[in-house]
Amino acid sequence: MAFTPLHDRVLVRRVESEEKTKGGLIIPDSAKEKPAEGLVVAVGAGAKDDDGDRIAMDVKAGDRILFGKWSGTEITIDGEELLIMKESDIMGILA
Amino acid sequence: MAFTPLHDRVLVRRVESEEKTKGGLIIPDSAKEKPAEGLVVAVGAGAKDDDGDRIAMDVKAGDRILFGKWSGTEITIDGEELLIMKESDIMGILA
Amino acid sequence: MAFTPLHDRVLVRRVESEEKTKGGLIIPDSAKEKPAEGLVVAVGAGAKDDDGDRIAMDVKAGDRILFGKWSGTEITIDGEELLIMKESDIMGILA
Amino acid sequence: MAFTPLHDRVLVRRVESEEKTKGGLIIPDSAKEKPAEGLVVAVGAGAKDDDGDRIAMDVKAGDRILFGKWSGTEITIDGEELLIMKESDIMGILA
Amino acid sequence: MAFTPLHDRVLVRRVESEEKTKGGLIIPDSAKEKPAEGLVVAVGAGAKDDDGDRIAMDVKAGDRILFGKWSGTEITIDGEELLIMKESDIMGILA
Amino acid sequence: MAFTPLHDRVLVRRVESEEKTKGGLIIPDSAKEKPAEGLVVAVGAGAKDDDGDRIAMDVKAGDRILFGKWSGTEITIDGEELLIMKESDIMGILA
Amino acid sequence: MAFTPLHDRVLVRRVESEEKTKGGLIIPDSAKEKPAEGLVVAVGAGAKDDDGDRIAMDVKAGDRILFGKWSGTEITIDGEELLIMKESDIMGILA
Repeated sequence: MAFTPLHDRVLVRRVESEEKTKGGLIIPDSAKEKPAEGLVVAVGAGAKDDDGDRIAMDVKAGDRILFGKWSGTEITIDGEELLIMKESDIMGILA
Repeated sequence: MAFTPLHDRVLVRRVESEEKTKGGLIIPDSAKEKPAEGLVVAVGAGAKDDDGDRIAMDVKAGDRILFGKWSGTEITIDGEELLIMKESDIMGILA
Repeated sequence: MAFTPLHDRVLVRRVESEEKTKGGLIIPDSAKEKPAEGLVVAVGAGAKDDDGDRIAMDVKAGDRILFGKWSGTEITIDGEELLIMKESDIMGILA
Repeated sequence: MAFTPLHDRVLVRRVESEEKTKGGLIIPDSAKEKPAEGLVVAVGAGAKDDDGDRIAMDVKAGDRILFGKWSGTEITIDGEELLIMKESDIMGILA
Repeated sequence: MAFTPLHDRVLVRRVESEEKTKGGLIIPDSAKEKPAEGLVVAVGAGAKDDDGDRIAMDVKAGDRILFGKWSGTEITIDGEELLIMKESDIMGILA
Repeated sequence: MAFTPLHDRVLVRRVESEEKTKGGLIIPDSAKEKPAEGLVVAVGAGAKDDDGDRIAMDVKAGDRILFGKWSGTEITIDGEELLIMKESDIMGILA
Repeated sequence: MAFTPLHDRVLVRRVESEEKTKGGLIIPDSAKEKPAEGLVVAVGAGAKDDDGDRIAMDVKAGDRILFGKWSGTEITIDGEELLIMKESDIMGILA
């Protein structure tokens, strides 16, 4: 089952950041407000500007991103937990 | 009796998501904030931009959509419970 | 006495929805938040866009509409109770 | 002494609605939120749009109008109590 | 010392309204919310619109105006108490 | 060390108003809400309008200005206490 | 690992201001509300205006900046604590 985000929304798979999973240890996280890491699964066609023209998206499927920890809405597609958020909730692209 | 939504409004029939109805069991739902699933029944002609031109709608009748659980206003047409919401309340299209 | 709504305002006569009046019975209404039904009596010439041009109205006198239950301001014209509301308070047209 | 309202402001003389004054009786008013009736005394030259052009006014001196009961600011010109309000506070024109 | 208001600001000298000063009597003022009267001393060059162009001012030095009683900021120029306010705080021009 | 304000920001050196410093006396100040006086030290290149074009600044380095008493953020450059504020916080230019 | 800020975001390395570190002494800081100092590490491609065109950034990698003390979100890249903020949170450039 495919899901196409509407407008400037982005479908994101949350990924655990490396420092937490190294060695399988659960490191107590003192910095809970830091952004979360994710992988872009699908992007919308873009919002429309005041003239009704599309504004192209800056992220694409496959991008590894950082986003605000509390951004987005949880959604289950084919049993997998994903997030739908607006592109403006994404802070930048890791490469 | 037909209903034509005004501007960028969408008429939606709520559909039960599959995981809840499989086998007829009512599965306790721990994730109440997840988006709801629906079927687009009718769409408005689109909002107007700053120059008074229509902005085309991105959803059409028949689309299977996800929308915010608390979005929209309940409405009864010919005895059937439907929802009127704005297109911006729709998160994406399932296919 | 005639009343011409200004800008994007609409003059509406509230009509009782059918399910309530069938058989003369007053059915206890459990869904008080549902939209109300009305008949458009008169419409304004339309709001003006950023350039001062009129934005044409999408409803016209005679349209049967649904509107938010708490929308509009009550007004008495020739002894009849009517409502003045903005077109944006109207959810759609019944036909 | 003349008063010229600025921008999209309107100078209004409040008039008592007929149902209250018939027969000189003071009828207890159960619908205090209903709009008030007035006569337009003078209108401004119009607000300016985003390009600095005037937006023409929809009411003119002499119009009999309905306006929100709590709209406007009281002002005394030559001993007479008048109201200054914005055109957007005016709901429509009686004729 | 001269003062040139910036943008759409207006420098105003407060004037006592006539009904208060006739005969030198201080008449108890029951209508404290009424607008105050003033004389325009200097006007700014005008705000800039979305394209950076000036929007011409509607008042000029010498105009006798009414303004909201609590509008503006007090300022002392050469020992005289004046007010700086935005043109939008001015309700109209007395003539 | 030089400081270049960004966008429509202005770097301001606070100056004591004359009436306070004459004769070295500290006059109790009953009108604390009056605007403060300052000298423009540096100005930004201007904000950008909706099309991304610069909007020229109305103040320049050297201007003697009045600004809202509580406007701006304190900043220390080379040991000197200065203020960074937006041009819109400046009420006008003294000359 | 590189990080590319999205839109008008800026990646900033916080630097201790000189007056605090001279001689290794921790000087009690009475002016906690003063802006903080930082070094621009990377900048986004710029926000998009109403027509979808990029608005060029005014800061570039390497700029020494002042920003609001509480601006931005903390982020750890390769073990280093950095900040992501919007360009509008930056007050100016030190040179």
